[in-house]
Amino acid sequence: MTKIGILGSGHVGSTLAQQIVTLGLASELVLIDPKADKVAADVMDLQDMQANLASHTRVFAGGYADLKDADIVVSAFGNIAEAWKTPTDRFAELPFTKKYVEESAPQLKASGFHGVLVVISNPCDVIASLFQRLTGFDRNRVLGTGTLLDSSRMKRATAAALDIDPRSVDGYSLGEHGNSQFVAWSTVRVLGRPIQELLAESKTQLDLDQIDHDAKMGGHTVFFGKRYTNFGIAAAASRLLKAIIEDAHEELPVSNYYAPLDSYLGYPAIIGKQGIVKQLALALTDEEKEKLERSADFIKDKTAQVLGSTR
Amino acid sequence: MTKIGILGSGHVGSTLAQQIVTLGLASELVLIDPKADKVAADVMDLQDMQANLASHTRVFAGGYADLKDADIVVSAFGNIAEAWKTPTDRFAELPFTKKYVEESAPQLKASGFHGVLVVISNPCDVIASLFQRLTGFDRNRVLGTGTLLDSSRMKRATAAALDIDPRSVDGYSLGEHGNSQFVAWSTVRVLGRPIQELLAESKTQLDLDQIDHDAKMGGHTVFFGKRYTNFGIAAAASRLLKAIIEDAHEELPVSNYYAPLDSYLGYPAIIGKQGIVKQLALALTDEEKEKLERSADFIKDKTAQVLGSTR
Amino acid sequence: MTKIGILGSGHVGSTLAQQIVTLGLASELVLIDPKADKVAADVMDLQDMQANLASHTRVFAGGYADLKDADIVVSAFGNIAEAWKTPTDRFAELPFTKKYVEESAPQLKASGFHGVLVVISNPCDVIASLFQRLTGFDRNRVLGTGTLLDSSRMKRATAAALDIDPRSVDGYSLGEHGNSQFVAWSTVRVLGRPIQELLAESKTQLDLDQIDHDAKMGGHTVFFGKRYTNFGIAAAASRLLKAIIEDAHEELPVSNYYAPLDSYLGYPAIIGKQGIVKQLALALTDEEKEKLERSADFIKDKTAQVLGSTR
Amino acid sequence: MTKIGILGSGHVGSTLAQQIVTLGLASELVLIDPKADKVAADVMDLQDMQANLASHTRVFAGGYADLKDADIVVSAFGNIAEAWKTPTDRFAELPFTKKYVEESAPQLKASGFHGVLVVISNPCDVIASLFQRLTGFDRNRVLGTGTLLDSSRMKRATAAALDIDPRSVDGYSLGEHGNSQFVAWSTVRVLGRPIQELLAESKTQLDLDQIDHDAKMGGHTVFFGKRYTNFGIAAAASRLLKAIIEDAHEELPVSNYYAPLDSYLGYPAIIGKQGIVKQLALALTDEEKEKLERSADFIKDKTAQVLGSTR
Repeated sequence: MTKIGILGSGHVGSTLAQQIVTLGLASELVLIDPKADKVAADVMDLQDMQANLASHTRVFAGGYADLKDADIVVSAFGNIAEAWKTPTDRFAELPFTKKYVEESAPQLKASGFHGVLVVISNPCDVIASLFQRLTGFDRNRVLGTGTLLDSSRMKRATAAALDIDPRSVDGYSLGEHGNSQFVAWSTVRVLGRPIQELLAESKTQLDLDQIDHDAKMGGHTVFFGKRYTNFGIAAAASRLLKAIIEDAHEELPVSNYYAPLDSYLGYPAIIGKQGIVKQLALALTDEEKEKLERSADFIKDKTAQVLGSTR
Repeated sequence: MTKIGILGSGHVGSTLAQQIVTLGLASELVLIDPKADKVAADVMDLQDMQANLASHTRVFAGGYADLKDADIVVSAFGNIAEAWKTPTDRFAELPFTKKYVEESAPQLKASGFHGVLVVISNPCDVIASLFQRLTGFDRNRVLGTGTLLDSSRMKRATAAALDIDPRSVDGYSLGEHGNSQFVAWSTVRVLGRPIQELLAESKTQLDLDQIDHDAKMGGHTVFFGKRYTNFGIAAAASRLLKAIIEDAHEELPVSNYYAPLDSYLGYPAIIGKQGIVKQLALALTDEEKEKLERSADFIKDKTAQVLGSTR
Repeated sequence: MTKIGILGSGHVGSTLAQQIVTLGLASELVLIDPKADKVAADVMDLQDMQANLASHTRVFAGGYADLKDADIVVSAFGNIAEAWKTPTDRFAELPFTKKYVEESAPQLKASGFHGVLVVISNPCDVIASLFQRLTGFDRNRVLGTGTLLDSSRMKRATAAALDIDPRSVDGYSLGEHGNSQFVAWSTVRVLGRPIQELLAESKTQLDLDQIDHDAKMGGHTVFFGKRYTNFGIAAAASRLLKAIIEDAHEELPVSNYYAPLDSYLGYPAIIGKQGIVKQLALALTDEEKEKLERSADFIKDKTAQVLGSTR
Repeated sequence: MTKIGILGSGHVGSTLAQQIVTLGLASELVLIDPKADKVAADVMDLQDMQANLASHTRVFAGGYADLKDADIVVSAFGNIAEAWKTPTDRFAELPFTKKYVEESAPQLKASGFHGVLVVISNPCDVIASLFQRLTGFDRNRVLGTGTLLDSSRMKRATAAALDIDPRSVDGYSLGEHGNSQFVAWSTVRVLGRPIQELLAESKTQLDLDQIDHDAKMGGHTVFFGKRYTNFGIAAAASRLLKAIIEDAHEELPVSNYYAPLDSYLGYPAIIGKQGIVKQLALALTDEEKEKLERSADFIKDKTAQVLGSTR
């Protein structure tokens, strides 16, 4: 009895749709994309899954009017061709996505949609902020996947170095879902200990800078290898959607409005059916605070540029 | 404690890998593809899912030597660029896939692999047959997804016409996973009745020819809309893998060797950990028997052509 | 975003609660039982599962007021001690459950509950009928698990005889979820064929009367061995709940109002979020029709007796 | 392709069996219990689930000879009637379970079983130790659920106090799965911070002693309310089994041999297909170290008593 809408049926939107259908997260799934042929193909391909799955989902191509009673809307549009021109810069897509938001936000608002808006579209923090301002939705209802994916990549890299399960690594990548992000190592724990303590005792040989780099570059490696990334982000987004649907009050690092720096950015929060239930208050080191500030400045700058050029 | 290998990391192979990882079907998953960058990107993208899933899978890029202790190997290679040149003909890929099989089969055999080989590569029936001959594996151990996907499409189209769950449609598409396939309507039941009886009583208005056409054309619609198909086949293959892994003895229409017509073709069988446990013996109508024979002739012809040109 | 309420926290109610929590079918689950200690114990035990599951469910002990916004309410109360006195007779519990319904129905109605009521309490068909009459709810909104469990037992027994997956057996047990039930063998298909045709050809040695007996006696074997039955019914009920939650339009044999015989009884129907979407129209043999009529007569008799003694 | 054996088909063993079947953790599940009627009833009840589940499991009643090729064996026997006589003392069952281990261990060894032995039977740490000594199995292959359940209860109580998801509470209960256990609060983190730091800042009002008490008493509340506990332990055990089956290298607090105190006790370790992959090395406070020592002393004392009386 859960309805999800996805704006954009590119690699990310369609892979997320597949993940939702496979995991049975929604009883209704509406895909919205101006490319009628592509979205029709995705819808039929998803329908062709139904006979062989444990769950049933009604999947259809629709419009904004179908979002009125949606519980969650995901913004997954993007322009991978544009992104590919300058592949290490998530802002390459901004001119395209900015235009999309300007067109989309009023329609989303007009639809009567009153659920949670989850933004994946890049640059994620700027787009989440933009959507929030242009819809006027309460800030708690508008969030982005942000550094949830980057944190997962940090966990993957850390876990690989220690030969443990990525789910047994705790901690966060913070700030922009982009080049100014950073791993807040003071928050990272493995094997029952703060990772930095473990290293100080020389019990474990790990190069945190290398892991930080691996985590941050993970997206680029994937991107250069297949010209898009979709699996990791689909799993991250699915987990976030599940926390919302189940009103789980699960702690996840997502892009949400961080008042002390007056910006959307990746920062852990408690997630429930209303979106952000409560934001955490981390005890970061001075260096980490500074990095977070720099990342926020970058996001704010970009957001201001975009807003300046927005009617 | 299940190990699966996938040959080919194109759209189908990588989407199947994602489905396996999402559903937790294997503890180890090895991807094999000569395109090192692509396979490395897929592996990392799949690893980036791990922190956010309910299951854990060790995913890595490997070679044939890694298949020695695999429980299942899936052949998912293909050449979509080649396929796209003549998009309504699954034989367009044959020159490419034939070469691949010739190279792959001896290596697979040499690896010591002793599990079940599941063929998705098109033309599915020919490739399954070719793999069986070139490896010398017992016929029960070599099967193809065949008309499992086509049956799912028939169920999707029939269910849509009746507004019921596709899982509540029973019956099969038989023969070639290609243009000579057909829906064996005598086997199709809905609403507790043979569909043809329901129609005869005029209780339900359905155009079976239209559904047959929709089912057969489903793949093309998807293909033309996004230039590949991946979701439906990944779900079908996952279900087949699950039946093998769980030794379920589930009845599924797959490409398997059909002795009466001396050909691999889509026909229902009981599936278990050894592959084909037992083949069904349907009571087809004369018209259906004839269609099956024509489809078998087509497959045998193509297989003979290929074998003729194979050392 | 799905809320389920369960009336009765005995073996069946609590095991169903565990199944719901394990499968993540609901975000909220309220258990209602006058035995405060037992229900508190179940709630805490279910909450103790949460840290180790893939899904999150808010489980709590509540009252009828909590059912106002429930999507589904399950009646699972019973009196196993009473049942145990005459273990082969599901009517042994009737005096107890009748009283429960008389107390429960007005409270359920008064709560403002407007979802689907699923009855498991025995005698299932009588209790479903009683609930429908005493609440005045639309008949489509009140259904019982009925012969869904008996059909599952028939599939288990048939599958064991043929060494196939129970999910690969199609067909129904019909009528009363009690001693007057019967397997409608004309509806049963295995290995792509009507089971009676297969037998007539002597290709398969099966004693249908023995299977019928095994299926019917299955519950008694379990009941005598552990003094209650819970796993099979919990799986059956979960599947039914899932079909409702997902609005799947799945075909399932459940206890629902069958107009031709003016009685609730086990008969296949299409299940969706509104309960019964549509009832099937089987082509039973004359013998089966007669058995169904006898079973309906029995249920109607019992229901009339109960209603006669109901204010 | 995973085979699990369960010794003991009481409330815990049978509920774990149901959880395994529901989650599809094994393709084969063998239940072993001298009470033939009870185990036959459980087996049939579990088989009756199969037609309605997403997974298939072959469930059967067996003997030790069936464990030769099992991947995991779970010891779940117990004597709830005995336990009920002195319900706050998990040692009440010891005379019964000791005898069981003495009979079981040689048969398990003789069977040729070479997988991982998971002990749930109480007193868990003593029984795990006893099993390890009497089988001579490598210590890494013999582990107990130990404080995995107690940690889950601590998470439940802490999460309830903070209105967050229990999965968002990190940390451990350590030592005996019994009265000498304790929450190692120095390891507990919530909301991105050590819980003790949060409290010191008075940002959050929490009574840790109360939570400790709630966690420890949780089992008793459940036990007094329904005369056994089964859901929480089944979920904990399932998670542990899943980590073994998937060779996940997940970090979990389980009963395992802790060399510094020469005793089995609840302490976090990395879990994989070989059982204990690696034990953690926590930085406990002096007070916690002392509590752990006292708990170990208690376990060792009891184990010595038992061993003294064991041939």
